Amino acid sequence: MQTMPMKLVTIIAEDELEPRLTDDVKKLGAHGYSVGKVRGEGMHGARLSEWEGENIRIETIVPDTVADQIMAHLAERYFPHFAVVAYISNIEVLRGGKFA
Amino acid sequence: MQTMPMKLVTIIAEDELEPRLTDDVKKLGAHGYSVGKVRGEGMHGARLSEWEGENIRIETIVPDTVADQIMAHLAERYFPHFAVVAYISNIEVLRGGKFA
Amino acid sequence: MQTMPMKLVTIIAEDELEPRLTDDVKKLGAHGYSVGKVRGEGMHGARLSEWEGENIRIETIVPDTVADQIMAHLAERYFPHFAVVAYISNIEVLRGGKFA
Repeated sequence: MQTMPMKLVTIIAEDELEPRLTDDVKKLGAHGYSVGKVRGEGMHGARLSEWEGENIRIETIVPDTVADQIMAHLAERYFPHFAVVAYISNIEVLRGGKFA
Repeated sequence: MQTMPMKLVTIIAEDELEPRLTDDVKKLGAHGYSVGKVRGEGMHGARLSEWEGENIRIETIVPDTVADQIMAHLAERYFPHFAVVAYISNIEVLRGGKFA
Repeated sequence: MQTMPMKLVTIIAEDELEPRLTDDVKKLGAHGYSVGKVRGEGMHGARLSEWEGENIRIETIVPDTVADQIMAHLAERYFPHFAVVAYISNIEVLRGGKFA
């Protein structure tokens, strides 16, 4: 089976950020995304952590360069103001051209 | 801790496909799976993409050969007719024998 | 973008175990976690498998050593008594210091 290496970007954030985050992700080059609901909990030092509360879990599959751009955008525009967890995984996809 | 390398296969598809997809995954050698609900959005060229709408997110843990067979089956039987996203991740599991 | 390698630990278990599992995960060094709902199905030999029923899917991001400790703890305290699936993925996170 012909698979293609891609990046899976996962973003966990408070649910109010969904429209803004998904809009940004698409503008940065993602062709689509899925969103699921999660709850989070945690403490980080003296305050509630990035994990806390009712959150959304956004997943998108993108090429390396788009993954980097999404991460850079999150770091610049979201991290100073919002509780966001973001990570990248290496995956192998079918129909890789659909995500490039 | 003794972990074993396995493949995590993730399939995102419209929710009506759940019984058929999970049945196929089991027939191809998966010993179990989990299913969560996600919503998707996206455009791909002129039409709605694979991500669109109320979807299910199926996860199963399988050996390499079963992962390949699941991907081949999806490519042959689903991709021509349905909106499906599928990808493989490398994971390390405990009690690997349970998935082999 | 400066990312840091971390481990994503995913635990799938019956929902009644949530308070106990999340408490243990935090005691073992995780700074937070998220929990989503999944359903599972499967047979393993003559009995229902680890995947069966209404389950929770816990995700936490931790350093290698904490991931190993969580796995060891699950193997010792949960696997003999409960239906639990657990696996580790390699991820790259932003703000890695928040998870260490």
